[in-house]
Formats: sequence, C-alpha cells, structure tokens
Amino acid sequence: MYTAKHMKWWGWGDEEVGFNTSAHPGLWPYAKAVLGVEEEHLDTPPVSFEAVQLRDAIHHDRFLAELRLWMRADQICDSRYERVVHTYGKGLRDLFRMRRGMAEGAPDLVLYPENEHDVLMTIRAAMDHDVVVVPFGGGSNIAGCLERADTRRMVVSLDMRRMRRVLAVDTESCTASIEAGVFGPDLEEQLQGYGLTLGHFPDSFLHSTLGGWIATRSAGMQSDKYGKIEDMVIALRMVTPVGVLATRIVPKSSNGIDVNHLCIGSEGTLGVITEATMRVHPRAELRRTHGYLFLDFESGIEAIHECVRKECVPSMVRLNDPDKTALSLAFKPPSSRLSQAVSGVMKSYLRVKGFDFTRACLMLTTFEGSKANLARQHNQVGAIYRRFGAVDLGAGSGKSFESTKYDFPHIRDFLMDRGITSDVSETSTVWSNIIPLYRASTAALRGAILNVGSDGESGVEPWVGCHISHTYQSGASLYLTFACRQQLGREMNQYLRAKRAVQQSFIDHRATLSHHHAVGTEHLPWLTDDISHVGVMAVAAIKAGLDPGNVMNPGRLQPSAKPFEEWSRIGSDAVCPIPADVR
Amino acid sequence: MYTAKHMKWWGWGDEEVGFNTSAHPGLWPYAKAVLGVEEEHLDTPPVSFEAVQLRDAIHHDRFLAELRLWMRADQICDSRYERVVHTYGKGLRDLFRMRRGMAEGAPDLVLYPENEHDVLMTIRAAMDHDVVVVPFGGGSNIAGCLERADTRRMVVSLDMRRMRRVLAVDTESCTASIEAGVFGPDLEEQLQGYGLTLGHFPDSFLHSTLGGWIATRSAGMQSDKYGKIEDMVIALRMVTPVGVLATRIVPKSSNGIDVNHLCIGSEGTLGVITEATMRVHPRAELRRTHGYLFLDFESGIEAIHECVRKECVPSMVRLNDPDKTALSLAFKPPSSRLSQAVSGVMKSYLRVKGFDFTRACLMLTTFEGSKANLARQHNQVGAIYRRFGAVDLGAGSGKSFESTKYDFPHIRDFLMDRGITSDVSETSTVWSNIIPLYRASTAALRGAILNVGSDGESGVEPWVGCHISHTYQSGASLYLTFACRQQLGREMNQYLRAKRAVQQSFIDHRATLSHHHAVGTEHLPWLTDDISHVGVMAVAAIKAGLDPGNVMNPGRLQPSAKPFEEWSRIGSDAVCPIPADVR
Repeated sequence: MYTAKHMKWWGWGDEEVGFNTSAHPGLWPYAKAVLGVEEEHLDTPPVSFEAVQLRDAIHHDRFLAELRLWMRADQICDSRYERVVHTYGKGLRDLFRMRRGMAEGAPDLVLYPENEHDVLMTIRAAMDHDVVVVPFGGGSNIAGCLERADTRRMVVSLDMRRMRRVLAVDTESCTASIEAGVFGPDLEEQLQGYGLTLGHFPDSFLHSTLGGWIATRSAGMQSDKYGKIEDMVIALRMVTPVGVLATRIVPKSSNGIDVNHLCIGSEGTLGVITEATMRVHPRAELRRTHGYLFLDFESGIEAIHECVRKECVPSMVRLNDPDKTALSLAFKPPSSRLSQAVSGVMKSYLRVKGFDFTRACLMLTTFEGSKANLARQHNQVGAIYRRFGAVDLGAGSGKSFESTKYDFPHIRDFLMDRGITSDVSETSTVWSNIIPLYRASTAALRGAILNVGSDGESGVEPWVGCHISHTYQSGASLYLTFACRQQLGREMNQYLRAKRAVQQSFIDHRATLSHHHAVGTEHLPWLTDDISHVGVMAVAAIKAGLDPGNVMNPGRLQPSAKPFEEWSRIGSDAVCPIPADVR
Repeated sequence: MYTAKHMKWWGWGDEEVGFNTSAHPGLWPYAKAVLGVEEEHLDTPPVSFEAVQLRDAIHHDRFLAELRLWMRADQICDSRYERVVHTYGKGLRDLFRMRRGMAEGAPDLVLYPENEHDVLMTIRAAMDHDVVVVPFGGGSNIAGCLERADTRRMVVSLDMRRMRRVLAVDTESCTASIEAGVFGPDLEEQLQGYGLTLGHFPDSFLHSTLGGWIATRSAGMQSDKYGKIEDMVIALRMVTPVGVLATRIVPKSSNGIDVNHLCIGSEGTLGVITEATMRVHPRAELRRTHGYLFLDFESGIEAIHECVRKECVPSMVRLNDPDKTALSLAFKPPSSRLSQAVSGVMKSYLRVKGFDFTRACLMLTTFEGSKANLARQHNQVGAIYRRFGAVDLGAGSGKSFESTKYDFPHIRDFLMDRGITSDVSETSTVWSNIIPLYRASTAALRGAILNVGSDGESGVEPWVGCHISHTYQSGASLYLTFACRQQLGREMNQYLRAKRAVQQSFIDHRATLSHHHAVGTEHLPWLTDDISHVGVMAVAAIKAGLDPGNVMNPGRLQPSAKPFEEWSRIGSDAVCPIPADVR
C-alpha cells in the first residue's frame, strides 16, 4: 500500500527536508537588512516531540467497536504521533502553536479509509454516535481549515491518502476518474502512463491531495492554461451523512442547480469527496520558463493584461513587485543564471532604458507545447512584453525558478527559527482595480506592522511584497507576502493584527477574502461581507440538509455572532486581543 | 419605458411574424415526403382569443392592497390578455394546450417590477400572504419551466422586462452589470455603444432575457467561443424570501461554496435574479459563416474533435446529421447560395470523392475576429476539415443560415397547423460516447414514434434529425429534432411517448437530461437519475433555507414520488397514460 509521508509535525515538508541555507546565502542578509534585524535572536525553537501537549483523547467505545467491524487495525490509529501530525494545517497560527507544543486541537482518533465503503460506514457510525469527522488530505492548508471547533464530542481525522488510484481514464475524451486522496506527484506519475497531466501545480503540490484541492477551490501555478480546480471538475462523488452525492460524467448540463458546485469549496463541512472525474490534458512536449525584467509593476501588469486581450496568455505568468523581485534575487544562488542575467541587464540598461533597481519587476513566464507552438508563444508574448519596456532575461533565468518552485514554504520555518514572522494573504479583483487594491492592501499591511496602535503598542519594520499570477479575462489574483521581527510575547498579536488589516483591506477595496487558499478559520470573519448574509444562510441550509447531525467539520463556513472574538482565539483559553482600530 | 413585445399567446414570435412559406417552398414537400403525409389535413387551428378558457383568478385583497402601496396601476395587471400571455412557455405541451384554449395554468395576476425594491417588496408581501411568485423573462422556455404547480394559492407572474438597463460597464475589465429583465437584442444594442458584446445568442435570442438565461443555464450558438451562460456570470444579485443574495465582482474566489452557482440554474425556485455582472467582449471586427460538406456524420464529428484537440475551435460549429442536412437544404430558398453550392458539390464530387446524399452532412462554421485572424482560423480549421474529407461550400452558403437563424422555432407552429407534431430534446456527453449515444437516442425516438406499443397502439412514420454544437474539451452536445403526423385524439400521447423514450435513452446512455434547456416539467422525472438522490436533497435543502414559505415557483426541481404520473398530466383533470414499456 503506497502511503505518502506525513509532513513534519511542527513545520513544512518532509522530516528530512528543510531550508538549505548554503544554497541561498543571500536570503538571510537580505532579510536582516530589510527587517532591521540588528542583533540575531532565535525564536523558541520547536519543542521536543515528547513535550507536545495533547489533551486526553475522547474515546467512544461503541463507535470504536463499530469501526472494528469493517476496518483493519492498521486503519485505526490513536497513537500520539498520528494525533499530533493530524492536529492542524500549516497556517502561521498553526505553526506558532505546534512549535510551542500547543496541540490541544489534536483529533482523538485517525482513520485511514481505503475505499468509499469505509468512508460511508465511518460517517454513518459517526452520525449514530455523535462523533465529529474531519476529512484530512495532505494537511497543507494555511487558512485554518483543520481548526478543531468541537471539544465536547470525539473528533476523528479521516486521512484519505490510501484512496490514491486513478480509476479510469478516457483518453479520447480527456477525462480521468480519480480517488480523492491521491497526492500531486503520485497523481501526475499515474497520469504520465497515459501521456496525460491534470495541469494542477499549487505551491503545496508535493503535500496536498485532489480532494483537498477541490474542497478548498485551489489554484495551481499553471491555472492560466488549465484553469482553477473548479474548472477541471466534470463529475464527483461525495459521501455525506445522508448518502452519496454523485454526478454524471458529462461536459456541461442544464440540470438545475449544479450540485458539483455544492461539493467544490465545501471545506469538509458537507461530507467527504471520495472520487472526482477531472479534465486532463496531453502532456506538453516542451516547457520553458523565461524571466523578464520590467521597468515597474504597472507596466508589467499592463503587459499581462495585453496578453489576455490578445488571447495569448502563457501557461504561467508571475509578476513580482519591486520588493518581491528583490526577495527573489536574494533567494537565488549567486551563481544562478537569473542573478547573472539581472545583473547584466542592470548594468547595460541602467542608463539606456532607465531601469531602476528599486522599481524594476521580475516576471516569470512559462511557455508550453510543441517546438513550433512554444516558439510562436514566445515571439507573440515577447513582442507584447517589449512594447511595455521589458527585457527578456532568457530561458536560463527561469531554470532556478523551476528547480526551487516548491521550496518557498520552507522559508517560513527558517525565518521563524530566527524570530521572524512571515505569512501570506491573497485575493483577486478586476483589472481596473488591481493597482488601487495593490496600493491599499500593501499600505494597510505595512501600517498594521509598523504603526503604533491605539493600545500604545509600538511596531516594527515591515517587509511586504506582492506578486500577480492567475490571470482571467476580467482580472487577476494579487498575492501578498509579509514579514517582520517578532515582538517577544506578542508574536501572535502581531500576526493577527497584520492579517486582520490586510483581509479587511481586501474587503474594503472590492476584492474577495481569498482567491485560492479557502475560508478556513483565518478568513471566516469576512465571509458574510464577501458572499452576503443570504449567501451564508444558503450555505447553512445545505449543511442542515446534508449533515443534520453537524458531524462534518463543524464550525467551518459558519461565521460566529462575534466573529473576531472567535478568530482571535488561539486555543480554548488563549485569546489575543486585536485593537479595534485595525480594520 | 421600453417594453419588449409579448410573443403571440398561442405560438412562437411576434404577432405579425410567422413562418414565411413562400420563402421556403421546399419545406412542406420535404416534410410530406419524409413523414408519409398522403392527404393534407389541418390540425385544430388555434382557437380564437375569446375562446381561451381561464379559471377565475384567485384574488388576495390584502396582498393587492399592499402592492398598491408602492406600485403604480400600470405595474399591476389582471387583464385577460396579460394572464393569457403569461400562462405557459413555448414547449410542445404548452402550444398544444394554448392552441386548444386550455389556459387553466394562467397566473392570477401579472406584475411588472421596475427595480429591485419592487421585487423585494413583492416577495415579502407574497411571504406574508402566502402568495406564489413565478419569475417571467421572455416566456420562451420549452422545458415547462412555467407550469403552474399550485392551484390553491394565488399565483403572481413577475414579468421582469422593465428591468432592462445596463447599469455599469467596466471597459478595462470587460465586465457589465446588467438588470436581469433585458432581452437579447436590447442588451446587445446597449453594449454596442461600448463596442462590446455578451456573445450569448441562443435560438430564443429575440424573445428571452438575461435572467432567464441564467436561471436555466442557457447556451448560445457561439458558446464555443464565449462559453455557456454559467461561464459568463461574475457576480449576481438574487432577491429571495429571506433577503438579497449578492456576490462580489471578482474574477475567481475561494470563499467556500460558490453561491453564484446556487442562483444559476435555480429556475425561479429560490428567488428572482435582478442583476448580474457578466463577462463581456470587444465586438469582433468581422464575422463569417462557411458551410462545409462532410462525407458522413462520423467524419464531421472527428473533424470537430480534432479542432478541439488543436485548440482552434471556431466561434460556432454546427454539424447536421444526414436527415438534418436534408431538412436544412429543404429549408433554404432554392435560389440560396447554399443550395447552389451543395448541388454543385454533389454533381462534381459524387463520383470523385464518393459523396452520397443520403449520408452527407452539412457543417456550419463561424469565424470571427480581425481580417488576419479570421483568415488564419479559416485556414487552420479548413485544413483539418479537409483532412477529414470535407468540401468548403464557401461563405455565401453560410449567409442564409445567418439571415434565418432565429426562424427555426416558427417551423413548429407551421407544422402544427398542418397536423404535425415536432419537437426537440438535447443533451451532452463525452467524445467517446457521442456516436453510441447518437445511435441509441435516435433509434429510441424512431422506435417510440413508429412502433406499435404494448397497448396495441400503432405508430406513424417518424422523422428524426440531429445536430452537434456546443463543443468542449471533453465532449459536446447532441441536439435531436423529431416530427411525425399527429394521430387524432392521441396527439399528446404521441408526444409524451416520444419525449419519454428519448429522455430515457439519454439517461440510459450516460448523458444528461438537458444541455441547455433546463429541467422544467418536461425533464423533471429524470432529475434524480442525473444528480442523484442526495443531489436532489441538497437542492431541496437550499430551497427550504431560502424559501421557507415555498412561495417561489413551487414544484420545480423537486421530483414527485410518482414522477411519471405528474409528468403525464397536461391539466388538472387530464392525464395522458404513457405505456410503461417506453423507457
């Protein structure tokens, strides 16, 4: 039985994989400089595994007895290790707690279903015995989707990783029916046997599952070509407390309300997605990523938008703002072709074209297809980019991006080890609003980290960067990354203050609470603003109909009457007060 | 106040517009030949307007008194004419009844809201006084979406046509916020002022509204380029009995369950869509439709599929099977360039290429864009078509299609005048299933019309044609048209028998109940097969949450316990028994 590894319990990635400082010698000096780190101090390192504090598991004997009727012993786990690795996702709030051994949200039991019957019987038994079921994919979510909302009832984490098979492939129609627990690399390996790809490559690709992607409306790096995950779903099966919801494998329909869309984005609150039939694609013959340097962020945005208008959007575009560009360069090995290319461009063009390092922006662009198609795309896009003042840094400059593209999440652990908080918030908006939103949300973030609050708190130097990716005819997503020195004893308050400010700025400036990270805990206070009170009522109505016992991932997608009070809670006892003026 | 005209109460189109026999002299001889009409007999012509039988209107005085507090007298109509034109849609079952003056499903009152407040207040008053509200767009639906399910409570038809404004256009982001009651031509005229188009051109374009398109998941002729209506919706506002559901104008989101998709396809059961923000597009500079002749249906399908694979799908493809091709040619004026071209091709190629008129298939293909782009598309697609044995009939041959493309629905009235039933059923499936489904569903239709049933009924000569349009990466839609001589006194039974057979064949052969016509009454018995019992429960749960008083278009999207008994009912007293062996 193939089983993907669990990520390290206190951080991102496999146990033996971390941030390789010697490969990225420029990062820490850059971070120190921009964050005003004068004296290095280490944050509390992760406590030892033995020191992790779990509450005693709630055990429901009759429920367990029922499970044992159809599951083997190796499918039913209550070890300390299993409970700990299934405690939270990988949000900053989660890492903060796990590093300190605060695992009170741990599930009481972990189950490994191997087929739909296992899932169905588990949920039935959970209904019968009032036990909570939380579907678990890779545990990579950073929006707090795995926050434990129920401390009274027994909570079972349903780890889907053993349901990993590609069940059927229709090569003529380019569809594949796939079990939902499959991880990214495993799925792509299986599809490769048919010469196919799903084309979904989120940053979490190595550590996340198909079911998780669908339940959270994920987007991969190449969404410009292949779409967001919701655009790829043709049919699915979801086990709910009232039975199995199943749809037909047809390209499009007019069969009333599209019930696929009730399952997509349901974040585990309605049931467990066990299988999905997805659009798949012949694998591209060739694939090449180029770096381009633009004079400024605005001209880069204009260039992307022009590609959208001309219907020649590459399979990936990622435009960094000046700060994110500086970070990208600091992140590269000094010997990398990107660093060399940028430095060459800077020298040659500084006077001729007026490149200014404090304003220049790096745009990574991936082309895919046959040799001829790739050349055509490169010419067409390159011509547009040039019109907006860009310089092509060549294909070599994209290679280091390709080789390190799944490494970014490791930086957070590296920085936390050094007393620095860093996190992300992302959203989407229409083209006409991108620059105003960019200015407002980066300013809100900087202000919340830097400024003295009404409570008399003094701030620290902020670092805020942004990139634009995931483009659409009507707009694009905006992805903000921020970092700051931790203020000892107020680390969580700092984070919540910054997070609240940036999320509120999204909502105040006509954007959405998240483009592809989900609602979870982190974004729940803004759900009503985003989809309206009646929208929230509608979601609650579906929940009431399909999960009358409220056993599926309770508390999610339902804003509380005092949203920010709940939101500031980092454990059953600890609440971090956020000043009311941070909006 | 601009107001689109009502269609004629007994048939399709404006009062003064009908089927122009002299422009299409070939149609009737063709129909007579293929249907075995030996002696012309006329069906019951539509009764006189005065003879239409309405039941007495149910009046609820306190409800009416409340309406009059905020609506003008011209917004509140209870005249016989208003009630009659709002009675049904234009399904065959509807026309059959209206021609005979059977208007017992007429609403009791017709209201013309002019803004969202009117809609909100109406629905509130309806809740307070237990009055049923049925949203009415153009009344063009042919799936029975306007069937009256409640004869006990007062029923109000909420005619949305006065809410017709384009409220805001964001030309940079290519979005337009539009009131839902606008008709196709009016909308396109308003958008033309900005150089934009929605790109949605269903057969009903002249007589249907934006809100109706969204509520039924409509598809236009150019969906290959612009998508189905659900792909175009960016945000919307829907007034429900518990308040206004409103979403944000953002390209994509991960904000939990996508509540836009609860409104899309809701068929009036949850509330009234008052406004939608839609993706719009710069108008194409040029537009040209070519006819192509293929050796057979299979090679035409292969050619379309190859265009999909090569990502060069034109803005419209419509491939007729041999019978539909013959009908198309019979429909053209004899002087048309299409007829001349086909006849020329037939003569020249008959021996050389092996064209056989009984198997040859016409494919209409529309190219759009700048002069250069159009030429490129034409070359690329033309090369693919040629590889599959097609002959280009030239752009002239597409002109008669363009000039008559909205005329097809008139044929049904023309044929009914002559004692002939004709109707359509459509679905979608994956590429690998198109030919098997085509064979099975056309055979089922022919069999149900021709064969003697277990009840000893003898049949008549069937005519069944099919076209393929609306292509996707994974499949396409299949659109069946059928006709037969009416058997006097059993007209409705004949229709129901044929309709049941074809719908059941869709379900039996892994297709969906409808690709773009909606569920309505006609397809309701197959909803559970299509979206599963839990899917139906989910839809019911949303309904219970947003419309606790069940005042919004009751009965729709909820299959009855005895689905075919309800389905066979053509009035409160009349039930047409369908032999059980027609499955």
